[in-house]
Amino acid sequence: MQGNVSGREAAITIGELGEFGLIARVTSRGDRSAGGVLLGPGDDAAVLRAPDSRVVASTDMYVEKRHFRRDWSSAYDIGRRVTAASLADVVAMGARPTGVLVSFAAPAELETSWAEELNAGLLDECAEAGASVVGGDVVRDDHVVLGMTALGDLGGRDPVTRAGARPGDVVAVCGRLGWSAAGFAVLSRGFRSPRAVVDAHRRPVLPYAAGPAAADAGATAMCDVSDGLVQDLGHVAEASGVAIDLRAAAFEIPDVFEQVAGALGGADPLAWVLSGGEDHALVATYPRASAVPDGWRVVGEVGGGTGVTVDGAPYEGPSGWTSFD
Amino acid sequence: MQGNVSGREAAITIGELGEFGLIARVTSRGDRSAGGVLLGPGDDAAVLRAPDSRVVASTDMYVEKRHFRRDWSSAYDIGRRVTAASLADVVAMGARPTGVLVSFAAPAELETSWAEELNAGLLDECAEAGASVVGGDVVRDDHVVLGMTALGDLGGRDPVTRAGARPGDVVAVCGRLGWSAAGFAVLSRGFRSPRAVVDAHRRPVLPYAAGPAAADAGATAMCDVSDGLVQDLGHVAEASGVAIDLRAAAFEIPDVFEQVAGALGGADPLAWVLSGGEDHALVATYPRASAVPDGWRVVGEVGGGTGVTVDGAPYEGPSGWTSFD
Repeated sequence: MQGNVSGREAAITIGELGEFGLIARVTSRGDRSAGGVLLGPGDDAAVLRAPDSRVVASTDMYVEKRHFRRDWSSAYDIGRRVTAASLADVVAMGARPTGVLVSFAAPAELETSWAEELNAGLLDECAEAGASVVGGDVVRDDHVVLGMTALGDLGGRDPVTRAGARPGDVVAVCGRLGWSAAGFAVLSRGFRSPRAVVDAHRRPVLPYAAGPAAADAGATAMCDVSDGLVQDLGHVAEASGVAIDLRAAAFEIPDVFEQVAGALGGADPLAWVLSGGEDHALVATYPRASAVPDGWRVVGEVGGGTGVTVDGAPYEGPSGWTSFD
Repeated sequence: MQGNVSGREAAITIGELGEFGLIARVTSRGDRSAGGVLLGPGDDAAVLRAPDSRVVASTDMYVEKRHFRRDWSSAYDIGRRVTAASLADVVAMGARPTGVLVSFAAPAELETSWAEELNAGLLDECAEAGASVVGGDVVRDDHVVLGMTALGDLGGRDPVTRAGARPGDVVAVCGRLGWSAAGFAVLSRGFRSPRAVVDAHRRPVLPYAAGPAAADAGATAMCDVSDGLVQDLGHVAEASGVAIDLRAAAFEIPDVFEQVAGALGGADPLAWVLSGGEDHALVATYPRASAVPDGWRVVGEVGGGTGVTVDGAPYEGPSGWTSFD
């Protein structure tokens, strides 16, 4: 859907188009049947199937200049990224995404084409995950704020919480770690390459099927890595009442990380892997290594005690994302 | 829960408390079992019961100075008001509210007590509706933005959409009309009384049980009045492919409206009733007057054609709320 906006239309602002005009335009796009939609956008509320009589729900808010930058990322990539980040929370419970609801605050001066490209990103990421955009809201603010609620279906599975890890479990990850952080480091210095890490920051690649598969394989605890692996595993350790030790040598450091670290004057690629968020890899604990499904990498183990260590020692690297730093 | 914040605690900002400290504090309050909560806040996502294998979902965003003012309303009242406004969308489908998810953006300098009072308002309004706060997000912004997603259960009923009104149906309302607009008019002129209308603006009183009851009684179309009766009925008329005519004499103009209109130098109380939003009354169409449940007032009828008229003529009053005016 990118690139089909004419020059004339691009100059129309959302203030000129109006709330209802914008809603009519974005809701005319995309498939609205995926995920079990019974009633889509346009009424007071949407109605979705909840096949096993339960619904998984998570909400997130993304603020311009705080969670994304319009000068660093296209509207399309921002749409894909916030959708992926929101759906990751549902997948991390062992559920299949079904639908999202989107709130969009923006200045009246914003070009309609920007909102339409954002919408195209939302729709394409939802399609990749098998979900639909089922509802939303459009309001005015002096900068862009996105609210997204993701809904999902457990398909009869027990939810995989953060609280089920037990001493003796192994810790495994599925998906990328550190790529978004490396891209952020590059962009922060004013560079736009290597493209592999910049693109990874702009648009994470999520292992959507891996969440339900982990639940089926008997994962005892799971979360997505949104704030940084050590920090997010800290929540698992606390909720489960266990200690987690990671083995630094178990992580693969991609060659491009070494190149970027060198070019940036000695950054530590392992810090990106252990502290970088926003790739939305899944991290889970399994009762034994033989239970870990294909596509996951064992990176540590669960023991008695508290906290997260790396090679048996406290982690001294950066602490990961916090909302009020 | 209001008034139990000590002076020392009130001086702590949410930046000092931090994201996780604030989340821990607000999630320690309130009943989390109402509405069928299987897994509440604190994990990647919540899990709620969806007893009839469907879930009703709606989302809204509220921006400081645009949708509420911190100098006009207490944090507690803002919490109640945004929750009521969000739950109204679920009720207007004929569903019972089950849970809400809340995103909260705020400056780091905001006092923790403000966030706690907001939370108390969210919890109390949810309790009144039989729902629970099941999840949320806390992020930083330079002003307060609230995102709220409301979930509900249809209990086996068909959803009452905006598209089912038929010529010959009667139009009926349940709940207040114009009270919030009258309160807004008073507050806008710098006054703080009469309290009845000012309080109505600060905290709408919703007929939560009336939505499911309307569905049971055979309502053919329904919505809540959030932007203004004529404007919101315009969406019903358009979605249903019908015309709607209101009878001005059918509306009760409270005595306090006449007092306020006089004090403000000749405002039109009927305009508040027909154009004022934010009281979140329910308006529905029924196949005949005898089907209208107790507590509803018949105010018009459905005919062939398009658009909304008052006493057979186009409505010349203010047009109601729009997001980019």
